[in-house]
Amino acid sequence: MKFKLPKTPAVYVKGKSFRLADVDPDDTKPFAHHPDDRDEATPRLLALRQRLSELQELLYAEHKRSLLIVLQAMDTGGKDGAIENLLTGVNPAGVLVASFKAPSKEELDHDFLWRIHAQAPKHGHITVFNRSHYEDVLITRVHGLIDEKTCKQHYEDINNFEQLLMNSGTRILKFFLHISKDEQAKRLQARLDDPAKNWKFDPNDLKERAYWDDYQDAYEAAMRHCSSGDAPWFVIPANEKWARDLAISEIVVAALEDMDPQPPKPDFDPKAQVIE
Amino acid sequence: MKFKLPKTPAVYVKGKSFRLADVDPDDTKPFAHHPDDRDEATPRLLALRQRLSELQELLYAEHKRSLLIVLQAMDTGGKDGAIENLLTGVNPAGVLVASFKAPSKEELDHDFLWRIHAQAPKHGHITVFNRSHYEDVLITRVHGLIDEKTCKQHYEDINNFEQLLMNSGTRILKFFLHISKDEQAKRLQARLDDPAKNWKFDPNDLKERAYWDDYQDAYEAAMRHCSSGDAPWFVIPANEKWARDLAISEIVVAALEDMDPQPPKPDFDPKAQVIE
Repeated sequence: MKFKLPKTPAVYVKGKSFRLADVDPDDTKPFAHHPDDRDEATPRLLALRQRLSELQELLYAEHKRSLLIVLQAMDTGGKDGAIENLLTGVNPAGVLVASFKAPSKEELDHDFLWRIHAQAPKHGHITVFNRSHYEDVLITRVHGLIDEKTCKQHYEDINNFEQLLMNSGTRILKFFLHISKDEQAKRLQARLDDPAKNWKFDPNDLKERAYWDDYQDAYEAAMRHCSSGDAPWFVIPANEKWARDLAISEIVVAALEDMDPQPPKPDFDPKAQVIE
Repeated sequence: MKFKLPKTPAVYVKGKSFRLADVDPDDTKPFAHHPDDRDEATPRLLALRQRLSELQELLYAEHKRSLLIVLQAMDTGGKDGAIENLLTGVNPAGVLVASFKAPSKEELDHDFLWRIHAQAPKHGHITVFNRSHYEDVLITRVHGLIDEKTCKQHYEDINNFEQLLMNSGTRILKFFLHISKDEQAKRLQARLDDPAKNWKFDPNDLKERAYWDDYQDAYEAAMRHCSSGDAPWFVIPANEKWARDLAISEIVVAALEDMDPQPPKPDFDPKAQVIE
């Protein structure tokens, strides 16, 4: 790993022997605090937010490098909540959330990384991909839209693409929010039971749910092929929302501390400036 | 006006007789509270943030309309701080800040609204323009890069462009952060005196400062020509940061309350869904 990992329930995917089934979605160790209200931010999360806000300002001032955060999950896995809890409090001028839905006809007329590249982070920015180029080795694979050979090519294309971004100063962190099938059932039911949440429910989610095991296999394979110390995948146990958010924040802040962004030295003499 | 204006120090620009010199940059009336620490958020600002966060989620859920906030100011006028204080706490997935700098060569090969149009807000989004298409009737006019006739055409093009956005569901609010020339001197000096703020100082700002009166004239003319009840310009007295931020938040929240976004009704029967 490029930086010292903080102690969290997150599992860094290393090597071809990684097994997703070995990661417990309920795990919250070594976090000690377990609030009664699971949606409540812990004091530690608030401290991390404050630090993230400072580091982001330094990154923006430096204006040479950037941070890309890739978020993937099964439906109801908590991507929206995780983004909100990570970034609320950070200056929105230095942050961009790119959400990738089903590609448009024009996007399909290009290679699968074309629309992704267009959203790559600017200097000084933190960009979050809510879904990403990994959908092209997940949903397409599960539904047989690509064959094994194409899928392997895609892994290689993805690794080369991420290397390109890293070569020009982008740090990459990838998080898979790992929930259990039972937890998904609970969350889908909650969206049906609460009229204020009905709009978040999509009947198609039930069809995709039937492919649960295939998706787990596809995620496992993608992470095995596309995780490295430079552009790591982390599996985040995500049944407990507070632990999920805390783990992500710890890792993001640790990565930025390691980047140690520095405002540029002025190329003028501050004492020689005369304001009239 | 399209909605009932809350009581703030902001001045709504109405008609050709508007005079910028009549607006006092120090004005904080009718706000009663004046915190000792001017950067400190007032309890009212915190309440407005909370409400803005709720309204933004509803706008996102509705996914039919959007809000465009245009921010203009003289250098050090406080655009960055205003954006941070308005939007911190709002889910960054529904917000985009577009910063317009000097146009690139490719952008100059198109009409002046081409690059602006590309950043127009998506359905469900709040987009903030940090500088905007108005630069093309400000800096260009002050430095004689366009003549009077072209400037008048630009006003018309701008009004037609904003009408197009409104016709497809975008509400537009435009804010000029109004500081005094003395206040700018103080803020520039502060950037020189504090090494941690040196990176925010640009010696070119001193050159532009010499054109202060020309800029005030250009702002006044632009606001006279391009303010209406549908797409209003507001002059925000901005010497006092806390009053500036509170005024903007009050107006933004009032506009969103007036829009009254509604999550869509489900097109399925929540009770008939079976999760297996």
